[in-house]
Amino acid sequence: MTKPNSNWRRKIHDIIYEADTPAGKFFDVVLLFLILLSVIFVMIESVRGMSAKVYDYLYVGEWIITVFFSVEYVLRIISVRKPFRYIFSFYGIIDLLSTIPLYLSFVLAGSNYLLTVRALRLLRVFRILKITRYLGEANRLKKALSDSRPKILVFLFAVLIIAVIAGTLMYLIEGEENGFTSIPRSIYWCIVTLTTVGFGDIAPATPLGQFLATIIMILGYGIIAVPTGIVSAEYSKAKDYVHVNTQSCPNCNAFRHRDDAKYCYQCGEELNPET
Amino acid sequence: MTKPNSNWRRKIHDIIYEADTPAGKFFDVVLLFLILLSVIFVMIESVRGMSAKVYDYLYVGEWIITVFFSVEYVLRIISVRKPFRYIFSFYGIIDLLSTIPLYLSFVLAGSNYLLTVRALRLLRVFRILKITRYLGEANRLKKALSDSRPKILVFLFAVLIIAVIAGTLMYLIEGEENGFTSIPRSIYWCIVTLTTVGFGDIAPATPLGQFLATIIMILGYGIIAVPTGIVSAEYSKAKDYVHVNTQSCPNCNAFRHRDDAKYCYQCGEELNPET
Amino acid sequence: MTKPNSNWRRKIHDIIYEADTPAGKFFDVVLLFLILLSVIFVMIESVRGMSAKVYDYLYVGEWIITVFFSVEYVLRIISVRKPFRYIFSFYGIIDLLSTIPLYLSFVLAGSNYLLTVRALRLLRVFRILKITRYLGEANRLKKALSDSRPKILVFLFAVLIIAVIAGTLMYLIEGEENGFTSIPRSIYWCIVTLTTVGFGDIAPATPLGQFLATIIMILGYGIIAVPTGIVSAEYSKAKDYVHVNTQSCPNCNAFRHRDDAKYCYQCGEELNPET
Amino acid sequence: MTKPNSNWRRKIHDIIYEADTPAGKFFDVVLLFLILLSVIFVMIESVRGMSAKVYDYLYVGEWIITVFFSVEYVLRIISVRKPFRYIFSFYGIIDLLSTIPLYLSFVLAGSNYLLTVRALRLLRVFRILKITRYLGEANRLKKALSDSRPKILVFLFAVLIIAVIAGTLMYLIEGEENGFTSIPRSIYWCIVTLTTVGFGDIAPATPLGQFLATIIMILGYGIIAVPTGIVSAEYSKAKDYVHVNTQSCPNCNAFRHRDDAKYCYQCGEELNPET
Repeated sequence: MTKPNSNWRRKIHDIIYEADTPAGKFFDVVLLFLILLSVIFVMIESVRGMSAKVYDYLYVGEWIITVFFSVEYVLRIISVRKPFRYIFSFYGIIDLLSTIPLYLSFVLAGSNYLLTVRALRLLRVFRILKITRYLGEANRLKKALSDSRPKILVFLFAVLIIAVIAGTLMYLIEGEENGFTSIPRSIYWCIVTLTTVGFGDIAPATPLGQFLATIIMILGYGIIAVPTGIVSAEYSKAKDYVHVNTQSCPNCNAFRHRDDAKYCYQCGEELNPET
Repeated sequence: MTKPNSNWRRKIHDIIYEADTPAGKFFDVVLLFLILLSVIFVMIESVRGMSAKVYDYLYVGEWIITVFFSVEYVLRIISVRKPFRYIFSFYGIIDLLSTIPLYLSFVLAGSNYLLTVRALRLLRVFRILKITRYLGEANRLKKALSDSRPKILVFLFAVLIIAVIAGTLMYLIEGEENGFTSIPRSIYWCIVTLTTVGFGDIAPATPLGQFLATIIMILGYGIIAVPTGIVSAEYSKAKDYVHVNTQSCPNCNAFRHRDDAKYCYQCGEELNPET
Repeated sequence: MTKPNSNWRRKIHDIIYEADTPAGKFFDVVLLFLILLSVIFVMIESVRGMSAKVYDYLYVGEWIITVFFSVEYVLRIISVRKPFRYIFSFYGIIDLLSTIPLYLSFVLAGSNYLLTVRALRLLRVFRILKITRYLGEANRLKKALSDSRPKILVFLFAVLIIAVIAGTLMYLIEGEENGFTSIPRSIYWCIVTLTTVGFGDIAPATPLGQFLATIIMILGYGIIAVPTGIVSAEYSKAKDYVHVNTQSCPNCNAFRHRDDAKYCYQCGEELNPET
Repeated sequence: MTKPNSNWRRKIHDIIYEADTPAGKFFDVVLLFLILLSVIFVMIESVRGMSAKVYDYLYVGEWIITVFFSVEYVLRIISVRKPFRYIFSFYGIIDLLSTIPLYLSFVLAGSNYLLTVRALRLLRVFRILKITRYLGEANRLKKALSDSRPKILVFLFAVLIIAVIAGTLMYLIEGEENGFTSIPRSIYWCIVTLTTVGFGDIAPATPLGQFLATIIMILGYGIIAVPTGIVSAEYSKAKDYVHVNTQSCPNCNAFRHRDDAKYCYQCGEELNPET
C-alpha cells in the first residue's frame, strides 16, 4: 500500500478511533448525536396513530442515518489495522446489525423491527464518555461495583434461594385460583415482592398467604440494606484509595501515604513505588 | 431622589429583603404564612363537590392574598436598587405570575387555573429558611448533593441506557397486546420497575417478559445501592471536612487538625497550608 | 396515712412502676402478655365470619382483661405519689381509655369499637423494653434518629414541596379523567410515587404525565439515598461515641480517648470527667 | 466391624461429607447439579398446558433423581459415625422428605406435590458453598447480620408496632367497604405500604385514609434508612476489625495495629492486650 494512502488511512483512524484531536472529538460528538437521534426515531416510529407524514419523515431520517452508519462501518474496517478483530468484536457486530435491517426491509417486510437493535449502539456512548471529565467517576463506580462482585453474587444467590423456597410455599398456599398458577410465576411474584416493586398483578388473597407475604416483604425490606451496605463500604474504600494507600515506609513504617507521595511524610525516606 | 424618600425606600428594602430586623422577620413569617395559605386555597378549590359557600370564601380569600402579593410585588420593585434584575429574576417572574391570573379571570374565564403557579412560590420558603437554624443542615445537604453531582449524573445516565435497552426488549417481547404499546411506554415501565415503584398499570404477561422483568427488578434493587453509597459517602465526607482534615504536623506528626487550624494543636508548630 | 399503709403502697409502687425486683419483672411480663393478648383479641374480633362461639370466648376474654386493666389502673393511681400527674399523663390517659369502652358497651352499642384504642397500649412495651438487654440498641437508635432530626426535617420539607409542585403539575397535565381528581389527591399520588410505593390505584395515562412521572420516580429513587446517608452517618457517629470521645488531655491535648479512660493514653495525665 | 469395611466406610464418608478430596469435590458438584435439576423439574411440572411427552420425561427424570437421592441418603446414614444425629438433623429430615414423596405417589395420588419440599434442599448449597472462594464474603455477610441482630430486632419490633397501630387506625378510617375488611388485613396493608412494596390490591379511598397513608409512606421511606445504616455500619465495622484496631502503642503511640499484632509495627514495643 502506498505511503500517502496509508497516511490517509491513519488520518481516518485517528478521527474515528481517537478522540484527542479536534476532528476526533467532533466526529465522536456527531456520532453520539446520530446514535441518540436514531434511537429517538425508532422510539417515535413505535408509537401508533401518528400522521402518515411523520412516518415519511422518520423513514427519510432513518435512511440518512443508515447511510452514515454504513459509511462509518466501512471506514472503520478499512482504516483499522486488524479489520477482522473489529468486525467480530462486540461493537463491530452491533455496528453491522444497526445498518443491515433497513436494507433488508426491501427483501422482507417488517424487518425494520430489527432497527431496535440500534438501542444497543447507545453502549458506545460509554466509550465516548471515556473522553469526558466523568471518566474518573465512571471508573470509580465500576471499580466499586467490580470489587464488590463476590459479595453481590453471594447476596443475589441468597435472594434467589429465598425466592425459590418462598415462591414454592406461596404456590402451595395460594394455589392457582389466586393467580399463583405455577411455581416459576410465584417465584416471579416473590422477586417482585422482595425487591419491593410490588406490581400487584398478582397478590395473595388467603390470610396465610398474606402472612407469608408480610414476612417476605419485611425480609426484602431488610435485605435491601445489604447491597447498600456493601456498595457504600466499597465505595468509601474506593474513595480512600484515591487519597491514601497502605504502603509503609521502608525506614519508619509510617503508612497511609498519599498515592502521589514520593517521600515519607514522617522521615523523608524515599518510598518504594506502590504496585 | 430626596434623602428621606430613599431613607423610606431603604426601610422597606430592609423589611422585605432582609430578615435580621424584627420587622423583617415578621414580614417573612407573614409572607410564608400567606404563601402556604394561598397554596391551600388552590388545593381546596380543586376539590369538587363542596358547598357553593366554600368557593365564595375561597374566592374572597384569594382576592385578599392577591392584593397583598400585588402590593408586595410593587414594593419589591420600587424598593430594590436594580428593579429590572429582580423583575427578570426567577423569583421575580414567579411573584408576577402568582398575582396576574386572578386579574386575568375578568378577561378570560378559567384562567384562575393558572393560580396553581402559586405552588412555585413555595420555593421562596427555601429563601426564608435561610434565617432558620436549619440553614446549616440545608447547606450541608446541598453541598453533599452538589459534590456528588458528577457521580449521580453518571449513575442516572447508566440507568437511562439500561431503561432504553430493556424497554426496547420488553416492547419486542411483550408487544402491544400486553400493554407495551410503544417503546417510550415500555421505557416508562422499565423506569417504574427499576425504581421499584411498580405501579402495576402495565405488567409483563409472557413468561419471557416476566423473566426479563425479574432481571430488571434485581438490577434496580442492586442499583439503588449506588446513589445511597454515593450520597452517604459524600455526606460523611462533608461532615468530616467540617471538623478535621488529614494533614499532619511537620513537627510532631499529630494529625486530624481542624480545617481552620493555623498551628498544631499538639506542639504549636505552624502548619503547612493543606492543598 | 399510717406507716404500714404507706409501706404497703410503696410495695405496690415497686411492683407496678419498678422492674428491678422479681415481682416487678413478673408483673411487667404479665402486663406485656395481657396487652398483646388484648390486641390479638381486638384483631380477631374484627375478622368477620367466625362461629358465634369464638365471639363468646373473645367477649369473656376481653372482660377478664378489662377487669385486670381496671384494677391495675386503680392501683397505679393509689400507689403513685402524684396521682394526677399520672392520670393526665400520656400513658395514664391511654390506660383509662383502654378500660372504659367495654363498660360503655352497656350504655351505648358499638362502643367496643373503641377497644381498638388498646393497640396504643403496645407503646407501653417500649417502657417495659427498658429492662431488656435491648436497651442499649434502642437508645442508640433513638439517639441516632433524634440527632438527625433537623436533617430529616429539612429533607421531609424538601420532599413535601416537591410533592406539592409536582402534584399540581400532574393535576394540570392528567386532569380528572385520569384519576387525578384534585390537587390533594395528586399530591397523594406524588408521595406514593416519590416513596417508590406505587400502589397503582392512580397512574398517569398521558405521555406527558408519564414523562413527568418518570422524573418524579428517578427523583424519589435518588432522594431515598439522603435519609439513608443521614442516618447511617449519624449511626456510625453514634457508634463512635461508644468507643472514643473528643475530650482532649489537659496536659498533652491528645484526644479520642475511650469513654472509660481515666488517664491519657499518651502521657498518663488524669483526664477531666467528660460531661 | 472389620477394618477394611470401616475403611470402605471412611472412604464414602470422605466423599460425601468432606470436600477437600477431588472425589469429594466432584460429588458435591454432582449433588449440587442434581438438586438444581430436581428443583427445575418441580418448577416445570407445576406449569400447566405442556405436551404430555414433557411430563413423561419429567416423570422419568424425577425417578432417576429420587433413586440417586435415596442411595445418597442411605450412604450418608451408613457412612456417618452417629447415624441418628444425622437422621434427626435439619438436613437429614429434608433429605428424607425429598425422597419419600415419589414413593408415596404409588399409595396416595397427588402426593408428588410434596416434591416441592426439594426446594429446601437448595439450602444445602450454602454448605457446599463453604468450599468456594465466596466463603469469606458469606461469613462476613453472616457476621455483619448476626452482629446487628439486636438492632434489627428492635427495628422490626418498632415497625410491627407502627403497623399494628396504623393498621387499626386505617381499619377505623377506611372500614370494610374500601377493602380494609379486618384489622389483620389492614395491618397487612400497612406493612405492604411501610416496606414501599405497595401492591395496590388494597388502597385507601377516603381523603383521611389517604392522608394517613401518606404519613405511613413517608415513615416507611425514612425507616428504610435505619436497617441500611445499621448493616452498613456493621458491615464496615466487620471489614475494619479484620484489618486494624484503635489501640495505641504504650511506647510510641503508633495506632491502627492489626488485631493479631503482638508488637508495635513501629517500635517493636509489646502491646497491651486490647479489651
